[in-house]
Amino acid sequence: MATTTEPGTGTTISFLNKLLGGTPLTHVSIRFWDGTLWPDNRPRAATVVLKHPGALREMLASGTAKGLGEAYLRDDFDVEGDMEQSLELAVALENRPAGWLNSLANFYHFNRLPNAHGGRFDGRELGDLKGRQHTLTRDRQVVSFHYDVSNDFYQLWLDERMVYSCAYFETPADDLDMAQVAKLRHLCRKLRLQPGQHILDIGCGWGGFAIFAARNFGVKVMGVTLASGQASLATERAKAAGLTDAVNIELRDYREVQRPENGFDAIVSVGMSEHVGRDHLPEYFKKTWDLLKPGGVFLNHAIGENLQQDRFRGPSFIDEYVFPDGDIPPIPIVLGAAESGGFEVRDVENLREHYALTLRHWVRRLEASHDQAMAFVNEPTYRVWRLYMAGSAHGFDHGAIALYQALLAKPGPSGNAGLPLTRRDWYE
Amino acid sequence: MATTTEPGTGTTISFLNKLLGGTPLTHVSIRFWDGTLWPDNRPRAATVVLKHPGALREMLASGTAKGLGEAYLRDDFDVEGDMEQSLELAVALENRPAGWLNSLANFYHFNRLPNAHGGRFDGRELGDLKGRQHTLTRDRQVVSFHYDVSNDFYQLWLDERMVYSCAYFETPADDLDMAQVAKLRHLCRKLRLQPGQHILDIGCGWGGFAIFAARNFGVKVMGVTLASGQASLATERAKAAGLTDAVNIELRDYREVQRPENGFDAIVSVGMSEHVGRDHLPEYFKKTWDLLKPGGVFLNHAIGENLQQDRFRGPSFIDEYVFPDGDIPPIPIVLGAAESGGFEVRDVENLREHYALTLRHWVRRLEASHDQAMAFVNEPTYRVWRLYMAGSAHGFDHGAIALYQALLAKPGPSGNAGLPLTRRDWYE
Repeated sequence: MATTTEPGTGTTISFLNKLLGGTPLTHVSIRFWDGTLWPDNRPRAATVVLKHPGALREMLASGTAKGLGEAYLRDDFDVEGDMEQSLELAVALENRPAGWLNSLANFYHFNRLPNAHGGRFDGRELGDLKGRQHTLTRDRQVVSFHYDVSNDFYQLWLDERMVYSCAYFETPADDLDMAQVAKLRHLCRKLRLQPGQHILDIGCGWGGFAIFAARNFGVKVMGVTLASGQASLATERAKAAGLTDAVNIELRDYREVQRPENGFDAIVSVGMSEHVGRDHLPEYFKKTWDLLKPGGVFLNHAIGENLQQDRFRGPSFIDEYVFPDGDIPPIPIVLGAAESGGFEVRDVENLREHYALTLRHWVRRLEASHDQAMAFVNEPTYRVWRLYMAGSAHGFDHGAIALYQALLAKPGPSGNAGLPLTRRDWYE
Repeated sequence: MATTTEPGTGTTISFLNKLLGGTPLTHVSIRFWDGTLWPDNRPRAATVVLKHPGALREMLASGTAKGLGEAYLRDDFDVEGDMEQSLELAVALENRPAGWLNSLANFYHFNRLPNAHGGRFDGRELGDLKGRQHTLTRDRQVVSFHYDVSNDFYQLWLDERMVYSCAYFETPADDLDMAQVAKLRHLCRKLRLQPGQHILDIGCGWGGFAIFAARNFGVKVMGVTLASGQASLATERAKAAGLTDAVNIELRDYREVQRPENGFDAIVSVGMSEHVGRDHLPEYFKKTWDLLKPGGVFLNHAIGENLQQDRFRGPSFIDEYVFPDGDIPPIPIVLGAAESGGFEVRDVENLREHYALTLRHWVRRLEASHDQAMAFVNEPTYRVWRLYMAGSAHGFDHGAIALYQALLAKPGPSGNAGLPLTRRDWYE
């Protein structure tokens, strides 16, 4: 890709100095195609490796974070060491008054614009999305795009239960398996599951919650997902656990779930509502309200961006390569839609630090299994996951995004929610 | 007040039957001026006593809940037994299709309309409120109207610490003193107070929190209130507790508090923000943000009406006789204003059942001290408190209103909130 008109190392360094305006880099070194290290040889957490003399131009040409991400997918540059820390470079560029990046947030933010689906990308293609967002057909397509990439790929770096959502760490040193079990237990406790209850799990993934709740709390769970790879493996795993009577996994849109005669005793939705879209939250809460028995509870576990992040707009790396049509409405908007739909807000817990920890586990495990991953996905796809997960860790760590568990009640007759007075039982 | 043109008992009963359209009353009997009991002699939780043949007309003439409340203040009727349960009658009337009551919610809801300040009332008069709502002058006037009614009056029925806000019951059988201590401890734990910290208590009342936190957690507390009776008694109590160095009470609007050099370590506001008004929430959160150190937390404890209650409008008993200019915005609105002001939502807990329990204690204690209360207030004032507190208990019990403790963080550098990973420490 290099041509004779490309700048040499010295010219690139001058340009970088000018671009960064003297902002010192603490965690990032840059290594040039000829081996030169900049700003010096001191070891740092991350090394951004420019692969050829035109690399920096390719990285910055678009003026967008999306374009910077695409340069990584094309291997104009690579990152050695700590991917999350490497974002310091992007932040430093973003913070320059000239700000060639219209928004760093595009690294780790969804947005609400239609997809452009242009660009050059040698990895998996979603293809053109037709029709309005959040039709049954289109939602199935976009969910499958992300979650059906390959069960084997996910299995390489998720915990043994394949729980693909924020874990719950009693201490930062907890390992990932332990933290996912703690999360599943935390959910079950918040729902106050009782043996024999009938629970709906919207967006059940590979069955982690359904199997755990059925085995440990004696409930019946109906899990629905739009990813066929998830549905089949979840069913297999429930069978292997001897829980075919208790766990029923269906490849179905939650909007097509039928209400059991007396309604579900409880509903849980973990990392699914990010695919609903804020304009469709009223429909989401109406449907879950209708499915739930009076006196039941609904636990919604989802990412929410900070209201102050609403300024971030524009073409998004996340929207194009990771979660098409995704949306992470701020928690006040989610709670407003829930209350307008009749639900009562009972408890809200912000677990953003837990998601940063979770994502760091995933990134480290993904990186450690790079070579095995190549059997299931290509390099650009690997890089999409590495970049989006490290970028998300950065976002959770800095508070641009948060993870909220919101417990909502559908009060019974006379407005009685039928809940214990305190949350003490969740911590016993 | 009775005249020869007033209807007899029989006519009134026919009218009542028609009005209620056959809705059976479970908890309420009506006793007429001549001793007749309706619908029968079976003992019920509450007896509404019509004092004269024109009573029902006086109660219903205005077609508003406010007018019904005023008939109680004028002693057109009285209530024997359980005041809260007596509201069944008002609910039954409200639920009739003809619905002479434009809104039962006026019993226990604030509204956002200017005061009418008409009506006939032989009790305390607020006088005309001039100027815009929530000026410094007007807020001092309306706060003083409610909280300066008489320290001796409040002392008769509040707990020994005189905590005039929702208590925290580990079990429904806890006594009020115990539950208020538990609430104060719950607040201190949520704030994660450390010895030596400097805390601001906005709307400090009679000093309950300030004295408790200083004594048990070794913090310095600045408490501000607009009620001079509160300020002087709080100061007295802090002195008696030997905490003059640690507790500083000021008769001051929170908007006039100066920022300490490094900001307050934490801010608590318990039952005060109901006086702010939703339009002024941005100012409220800007001021508290400015007063707080980076890395500090702000706990806001306040009543919020359910978003679905927004339909209730019109002249309000509460607004005229209890909390002029009061407003209880739904929790999504409060959190939206907080996030827009920079705060991060960390934890939200709904304690509405606790407020119903608290109010029942207050009502029972107030009723038990009726005769002593007459030394400090007149009968209509006594009735204002009895009615508004029983009505509020009804509202909390039925979920029309809720009590939310919201823990908000002002993240430090790099968005670090500096909080423990879990809430487990609040329950140890």
